[in-house]
Amino acid sequence: MVFLGIDIGGTKRVVVVGDHTGQPLVHIRRPMEDSGDWRADLDCLIEDARSLLADWEARTGEVLARVGASVPGPADAARGIVLNPPNLPSWHNAAIGAALQEAFGVEVRIDNDANAAALAEHAHGAGQGVENLLYLTMSTGVGAGVIADGKLLTGAFGGAGEAGHIPVEFPGAACRCGLHGCLEAYVGGHAWRSRLREIVPEGSDVLSRAGGDRGAILPEHLVASARSGDAFACREFDRWLDYLARGIVPWVMAFEPECIILGTIATAAGRSLCFDPLEVRVAAALWPHQAERLSIVPAALGQALPQWAGLAVALSGTPMDDSAS
Amino acid sequence: MVFLGIDIGGTKRVVVVGDHTGQPLVHIRRPMEDSGDWRADLDCLIEDARSLLADWEARTGEVLARVGASVPGPADAARGIVLNPPNLPSWHNAAIGAALQEAFGVEVRIDNDANAAALAEHAHGAGQGVENLLYLTMSTGVGAGVIADGKLLTGAFGGAGEAGHIPVEFPGAACRCGLHGCLEAYVGGHAWRSRLREIVPEGSDVLSRAGGDRGAILPEHLVASARSGDAFACREFDRWLDYLARGIVPWVMAFEPECIILGTIATAAGRSLCFDPLEVRVAAALWPHQAERLSIVPAALGQALPQWAGLAVALSGTPMDDSAS
Repeated sequence: MVFLGIDIGGTKRVVVVGDHTGQPLVHIRRPMEDSGDWRADLDCLIEDARSLLADWEARTGEVLARVGASVPGPADAARGIVLNPPNLPSWHNAAIGAALQEAFGVEVRIDNDANAAALAEHAHGAGQGVENLLYLTMSTGVGAGVIADGKLLTGAFGGAGEAGHIPVEFPGAACRCGLHGCLEAYVGGHAWRSRLREIVPEGSDVLSRAGGDRGAILPEHLVASARSGDAFACREFDRWLDYLARGIVPWVMAFEPECIILGTIATAAGRSLCFDPLEVRVAAALWPHQAERLSIVPAALGQALPQWAGLAVALSGTPMDDSAS
Repeated sequence: MVFLGIDIGGTKRVVVVGDHTGQPLVHIRRPMEDSGDWRADLDCLIEDARSLLADWEARTGEVLARVGASVPGPADAARGIVLNPPNLPSWHNAAIGAALQEAFGVEVRIDNDANAAALAEHAHGAGQGVENLLYLTMSTGVGAGVIADGKLLTGAFGGAGEAGHIPVEFPGAACRCGLHGCLEAYVGGHAWRSRLREIVPEGSDVLSRAGGDRGAILPEHLVASARSGDAFACREFDRWLDYLARGIVPWVMAFEPECIILGTIATAAGRSLCFDPLEVRVAAALWPHQAERLSIVPAALGQALPQWAGLAVALSGTPMDDSAS
């Protein structure tokens, strides 16, 4: 028996055949092109998957047991539907659970990318053996997946883990979600990029890393400048860390993870620039016994995450409501 | 088979014999007197329990299956230990789990009062049939118990549910816990009482309800004045609601309960003064689909809670690490 993992991202798509532990065996990774017709795009992906599976079965005789898909959030795992992903607009209300079930004739599980990453890091990455963890990722937006007592925390209607929209300032800045003071409005890539394009001083290191084009400034340029010790960039990164710490503390009080795994830009920034000073800030807002028991660590799967995420959903994701097949 | 429930509070102690559903059958409720020797106080309680159990067995032939105790927080459920309860100082590090196991020869489970109340409201009160809920109580401090996916959320080391210490202001007021900006420093009875004693205007309705003695002002006086429409009291109660709403929002984002149950002073304040305006404030900080799916309701067990809490722990609490017996 083998499992099929699918990862649909804003820039790439991956299909992978893996074993019963979620270990990838063979995969195909291609750039994601949004043709404007999600069903046609999914069919290309299904074709790749069929060829991988046929190959594998011919070589080993092993057949497909279950399919798992990591999809751009927000998603409705119980109904197998991609809802309204900002980075893949044509996948609005895409019923991929049903489509994949029809294509492969086995049970299908789907979940949003942050939950899938949490499951993958729990099973094979920085959260191995940890039964209570928070996976937090800051890319364009801010997403989270929570493992509580060894299981993915879903919430009453599949909406748990909205780490990006916990308020961290009162009164707070407008978030593009319509609310105010959200963590995402302070540390998310979209909001941070807009801020940097306004406040980066003329002649600064950050601006020159963006080729002198203010409109091209990205958080990555700020991080690179901070790593090289640029004073403005270090101050600005410290502010980012202050808000990130505010976004982390409620999780520790609410459900006491023993490990917080940070993905994307935090992982890129590294230990001395990001993790060490972040731990100091978080500890200052916790009781000593809480801080002692908590570790904040970089995600371990890194660029290989898409190979693991879909398989993790196949193995440990939430079954769809009608998952009889 | 019957179950024994024990509730140890700052002002009363209850022992109760109940059935396998957690329904109380007979109980003894007495004032709690802290003699300074927790072991002697526990022995009085054990004596009451033995007499109830002997009576019940003589009448019905039913014997004891398990013991559950609701104890003042913080407590270590896994080890069966009361840690350092501010309202019962002599119960510091009281190993009541082991003591009760020795006294009754059956499995014992203990948990802090907020978790016990969450279990009891889930099984028999306002949270019946609700698989994801937050129970929040504002008395001297602020405590919480969380049911996620039908089970008590414990955290990695039994420390989940610290709702009182989620920050709601930056920079925030000093909390007696040593941290800053905690919800408890704004809505907890201890902090609120201190504030009221300072800010209540001369000649106000609140002050006259406290017999003109500023040092005797309690939150209950403020609530009574607000119910009667006193302008100062209404403004001050609105401020209390603003902070309470801030303390609730992170829970909705983090684990999406469908129901938030408020105990103690909120229940006393009632729907039109407390719950209706609180729902408006919480909804303003949520997305519409979140607000629609959430209800904020008063606790249903009220003054009878101590009869239910210990039994709920016996039936659904966390087993102790060595619970072999």
